[in-house]
Amino acid sequence: MAEAELLACDWGTTNLRAWTLDGEGRVVESGEFRGLGVSNLKPGEAAERFRNEVQPHLRAQGLPAVLCGMVGSNLGWTIAPYVDCAAGLEDLAKQLVPVEADAPWARIVPGMRSTGLTGSSDVMRGEETQLFGWLARHPERARGRQVVCHPGTHAKWMVVEDGKLAQFVTAMTGELFAVLSKHSVLKGEGRADDAAAFLEGVAAAGEGDGLAARLFTARARVVGGGKPVESTPSYLSGLLIGAEVAAMPRLLGLRPGEPLVLLGDEMLCSHYSRALEARGVASETFDGEEAAVAGLFALYQMGAGQ
Amino acid sequence: MAEAELLACDWGTTNLRAWTLDGEGRVVESGEFRGLGVSNLKPGEAAERFRNEVQPHLRAQGLPAVLCGMVGSNLGWTIAPYVDCAAGLEDLAKQLVPVEADAPWARIVPGMRSTGLTGSSDVMRGEETQLFGWLARHPERARGRQVVCHPGTHAKWMVVEDGKLAQFVTAMTGELFAVLSKHSVLKGEGRADDAAAFLEGVAAAGEGDGLAARLFTARARVVGGGKPVESTPSYLSGLLIGAEVAAMPRLLGLRPGEPLVLLGDEMLCSHYSRALEARGVASETFDGEEAAVAGLFALYQMGAGQ
Repeated sequence: MAEAELLACDWGTTNLRAWTLDGEGRVVESGEFRGLGVSNLKPGEAAERFRNEVQPHLRAQGLPAVLCGMVGSNLGWTIAPYVDCAAGLEDLAKQLVPVEADAPWARIVPGMRSTGLTGSSDVMRGEETQLFGWLARHPERARGRQVVCHPGTHAKWMVVEDGKLAQFVTAMTGELFAVLSKHSVLKGEGRADDAAAFLEGVAAAGEGDGLAARLFTARARVVGGGKPVESTPSYLSGLLIGAEVAAMPRLLGLRPGEPLVLLGDEMLCSHYSRALEARGVASETFDGEEAAVAGLFALYQMGAGQ
Repeated sequence: MAEAELLACDWGTTNLRAWTLDGEGRVVESGEFRGLGVSNLKPGEAAERFRNEVQPHLRAQGLPAVLCGMVGSNLGWTIAPYVDCAAGLEDLAKQLVPVEADAPWARIVPGMRSTGLTGSSDVMRGEETQLFGWLARHPERARGRQVVCHPGTHAKWMVVEDGKLAQFVTAMTGELFAVLSKHSVLKGEGRADDAAAFLEGVAAAGEGDGLAARLFTARARVVGGGKPVESTPSYLSGLLIGAEVAAMPRLLGLRPGEPLVLLGDEMLCSHYSRALEARGVASETFDGEEAAVAGLFALYQMGAGQ
């Protein structure tokens, strides 16, 4: 087994994922710490949990560490101020924040800030590291313009220009799905794995306008249309993702025929890919975890001398 | 005081409103029974609660009664089957349903059913009575085409053609507001009475597309834009109503310059009116309670001989 040189962490709101990497950025060992998200940390507890749980589990005591995600927020370990768009990997590498004044061996990746849809600031923490890791792995994408979607509770739609993140917009599609599935008349008992109902939902999304009326069709198709209530989650998922992919590429100026990049969880990306395909939009999917590892390693290398 | 001739009831999901009317349809006495909605009834309990609470309170024992709303659903007293669009007041009057075979003195107004946005059935119970009551009071509106919006938890957008309800579509805007205000990152503590934040939300609604991204601006304007979190409910209300009024008139084929009718609760209609005005769409507001009384009286008169 190659010798580990770096401890790389994606420390988010609900979970922490960590990898030890060798000098070439290859994964030596990995661990997932479910429930160890920053939303579950007591104030000031990050350092202790990191030292008592994450480091020993990966035998990473004494290794330098680079951490991205909500760990850099006011809920995390140390605040890493946002870097404004447009910015690239080098800009982030220059602004890695040591977790403590006397602990420069562990550094946090800053989040990023963009002008959102209505002029207010939009923010992200973690997705920027995946984006730049993906670009580091695919340097041919660092020329020209690229629209990248990172699906999730709060999906991020990112516009890349010449290797820099120029703008991004957050769409709370995943949260809408969760909240409506649990607390509204659209709640359903089944799993969201009915492919036909999903595509029915995508079609019902139309151009994504009039969503409050389109959403009600999820109830009407059961109560008035005889469709099984177990298919409601799939239909609702198709409707919400369909409305998102109908509107966002247009709002971000994706040109007709220009392919869209999906970056993130494989299953979630496959839902987006199917919805886009149904609308005649081509997409390519890349794994978010690989991209996170590549991004953390690239930041480590580039930031080593800072 | 004039002598009461009819007991008119709008018996909904959460509340019951009742009026005794004289022979001209004028209100003699009225009562509101908060909490006596059909969602709180035990099976088979409707008749008893009506006889023990509603009738005595309004001294209406022995009077004929006409009831509209969810009282005609499977949660109510007796199921009054839906009448399909297109249909008018006379069609409903012919299909009033006695609450019991041996109690023809109390009759329930059928709900209505329409083809909704995606071909599935859409349904209503109660709003049809307000619509036809409004038309009975304004017979000049019974010629040509009219788009009428009844705001609420489940807003109804109705297309009237030559006095008949030709089509309607439900938009669950009110429920979206309630669910997001309570269960999402958009929850806010204040009341929805900040007029400037409301109009800011209407502007952020754009054309109503990309709603999941537009909704996130309600958080971004607080976290990244320094706006007070107390203004979030007003902003969210403006955004959701703005998205609805941006899309629904177009989806229902309202012609440019054609005025829209708002029918319902005065406060809620005033929100819709302001959002429409901000988009340059003229609207006229009519009181829903007056319309309900007029509709129940018209059905009583027209259905008397059936």
